[in-house]
Amino acid sequence: MSSDAPAEVRPRVAVVGAGFAGLHVARGLAKAPVEVTILDRANHHLFQPLLYQVATATLSPDQIAHPIRAVFRKQENARTLLADAQAVDLEQGRLSLAREDGGVDHLDFDYLVVATGVTHSYFGHDEWAEHAPGLKSLEDALEIRRRVLRAFELAERNPADADSLLTFVVVGAGPTGVELAGALAEIARKSLRREFRSIDPTSARILLVEGGGRVLPAYVERLSESAKQQLESLGVEVHIGAQVTQVDAEGVVVRMGDLDTKERIESQTVLWAAGVRGSSFADKLGVELDRSGRVPVTADLSLEGHPGVFVAGDLAVIDGESGQVPGVAPAAIQAGKHIARQIGRELEGRSREPFRYRDRGSLATIGWARAVADLRIVRFTGVTAWFAWMAIHVAFLVGFRNRLFVLLGWAWSYVTFRRGARLITKPEADEPLS
Amino acid sequence: MSSDAPAEVRPRVAVVGAGFAGLHVARGLAKAPVEVTILDRANHHLFQPLLYQVATATLSPDQIAHPIRAVFRKQENARTLLADAQAVDLEQGRLSLAREDGGVDHLDFDYLVVATGVTHSYFGHDEWAEHAPGLKSLEDALEIRRRVLRAFELAERNPADADSLLTFVVVGAGPTGVELAGALAEIARKSLRREFRSIDPTSARILLVEGGGRVLPAYVERLSESAKQQLESLGVEVHIGAQVTQVDAEGVVVRMGDLDTKERIESQTVLWAAGVRGSSFADKLGVELDRSGRVPVTADLSLEGHPGVFVAGDLAVIDGESGQVPGVAPAAIQAGKHIARQIGRELEGRSREPFRYRDRGSLATIGWARAVADLRIVRFTGVTAWFAWMAIHVAFLVGFRNRLFVLLGWAWSYVTFRRGARLITKPEADEPLS
Repeated sequence: MSSDAPAEVRPRVAVVGAGFAGLHVARGLAKAPVEVTILDRANHHLFQPLLYQVATATLSPDQIAHPIRAVFRKQENARTLLADAQAVDLEQGRLSLAREDGGVDHLDFDYLVVATGVTHSYFGHDEWAEHAPGLKSLEDALEIRRRVLRAFELAERNPADADSLLTFVVVGAGPTGVELAGALAEIARKSLRREFRSIDPTSARILLVEGGGRVLPAYVERLSESAKQQLESLGVEVHIGAQVTQVDAEGVVVRMGDLDTKERIESQTVLWAAGVRGSSFADKLGVELDRSGRVPVTADLSLEGHPGVFVAGDLAVIDGESGQVPGVAPAAIQAGKHIARQIGRELEGRSREPFRYRDRGSLATIGWARAVADLRIVRFTGVTAWFAWMAIHVAFLVGFRNRLFVLLGWAWSYVTFRRGARLITKPEADEPLS
Repeated sequence: MSSDAPAEVRPRVAVVGAGFAGLHVARGLAKAPVEVTILDRANHHLFQPLLYQVATATLSPDQIAHPIRAVFRKQENARTLLADAQAVDLEQGRLSLAREDGGVDHLDFDYLVVATGVTHSYFGHDEWAEHAPGLKSLEDALEIRRRVLRAFELAERNPADADSLLTFVVVGAGPTGVELAGALAEIARKSLRREFRSIDPTSARILLVEGGGRVLPAYVERLSESAKQQLESLGVEVHIGAQVTQVDAEGVVVRMGDLDTKERIESQTVLWAAGVRGSSFADKLGVELDRSGRVPVTADLSLEGHPGVFVAGDLAVIDGESGQVPGVAPAAIQAGKHIARQIGRELEGRSREPFRYRDRGSLATIGWARAVADLRIVRFTGVTAWFAWMAIHVAFLVGFRNRLFVLLGWAWSYVTFRRGARLITKPEADEPLS
């Protein structure tokens, strides 16, 4: 090709959201004849499976987050934009991006991939959000870390209030709830031991409250039972079939299923891991959403009637061979790669393939040397599952530095029982000392 | 002593502020027959000499901060309180601590040590603060990091605004200003290279504006000149004798001393390293402060007329043999140890000694392999000074983990030219993606 040939006009692919799905769409298009723009409201890709370790002070934010821009440094057909997508015109192929000054920028596309994920759902009780933060972003994790560490500090100052300050309630016993509850128990029983003079942190109560019939409901029953026992061995009080009916600044009200009685639990620190709903960008697509605000897609992950628009990751409702594809990182990665492949095929004049989710199993950790693993061909619990969990999570982290520092951080915590990131940082800047 | 002897009533020492001075008072009293309470508004001791590396994305907050409570885990005569000291009654020996609920707790003391440090001074122009953040706390550092990284992101989105977005002004050429300017130049010239598609980060302007006659005015002239040359070799524009007369959202106005002309510099990112004033707690002591709101002390570092009240660290105005003792970490550490020793002597019935500052020299870093060192017996610059700077700073960090992780972080940055903590985190929690 002569060097003064006119620049080839390449199809423009816009990817909204740089989570696992979005990142793998953009990476998968590295060699395709397209121009990729990847947009996110944050400047970093977040390794969400380890986010609870930031919330519980074992890891620092930079260990599990990687600048999106750095991921695509060498991918010349990709550019990264820090941007908040506000609206989309699917007919025109045009995104509207909010500007700082209140104005709007436009971004035209030939293909659109929506991978904006999910956010917390309070089942119609949005007023609970301020009392019971959820865990989706780095900011959420820092807020939870702040509340947990502050509760111990306030109890030391006012031992008379220690009962409610040292009661921690985690709502929802999926993987995140289980991980948070286990880590809270370890903070109280091990990390903070002997550091207080007026209170005994080991006396803290950690309650895990689950409305359904067992912890880790997506796992086989034997592993659910093991997870419950491992939690209880750490001193977590597990309440099954217990529905939260109220959350306020002083605690929660729980309806205990089997007894049909309501119980009030006084707690200054309630964490929400109970439900998710599609992010608000889903509303802009003009399609009917499912009950939790997520987007149903066709077999190739495109939007019904809009073959150039794909939805991937937790936001997509995907029917798999054995029910809905779960909202987990491996599914998002597979969906991202699938979409990149379909765009590539189409540009080569080949037909699309349906998406096939390959479930390679799942792992959840409960604490140091405590975990459950279901690798389909084999299921195991305890320290072996925990090592498998660590190995897999480090392998999937983005960036060599993150892998090295996470491993070192874990090694240090494991040897010392200490947590490396026990900082209370205020959300708003303030003068340093009174 | 029989175990059921009545508990001995020990003198109570209250230490307000857990910076270098406060920490060393409390540690120095470990074997004294006293009860120590150390108060701080933050839960961590901050290693301020490396704070600029958090602001410029090389280190993460947890690498230079250590929970105060963890420092005193094994010191049984010390307790730590997260508290905001609002007022003090020197006659009664009573501190008032603000409560969350608006009320007040009291803390009685026999000895009081005030080590609340200094904050930024805008020379009567407090309205400049929002446009030109200073660098004293972790929150300050994260705010500066956010502004710097965002400026590059916004420029990529709106290349038409790149001129003012990629102009960074650092006001004040003391050690902090020099370190910030050098690090900004390295971010632009090295760390971000090849990551942008619409702008060239290496074209960023970094201006260091100093009202006085030279950079690093506390150093000998030869080192000031070397520092200036090292900054210029990194591409920093150094303006000497240049007084800032206005700061607003779009930039600064500078009066160039030799020309007596005013020049407007359009800049979205102005950082303040120009002046400090005593923290507000100094006002509560009922003594006359110096022009910058700091507290004059007697020869033994106590308050005139109040032998049981000491002031230490940057807040104290201490007359040394060669002028005022500078506001640097080694001076604060020495003052803290001195005060602990005096309290110990007094309880043994011995007389007090005057404080003697031992100046062992000073070092300032400009960038990778660029620094100046004045160790009194020998002065040197460049890579040797830089290694000396690194060795001394790591040696004085609190906590083994911090030392290890800072060293590893530096090694990684040095090999790759990358920065490990390039995260924009929002000050307020928000939903993850649009």
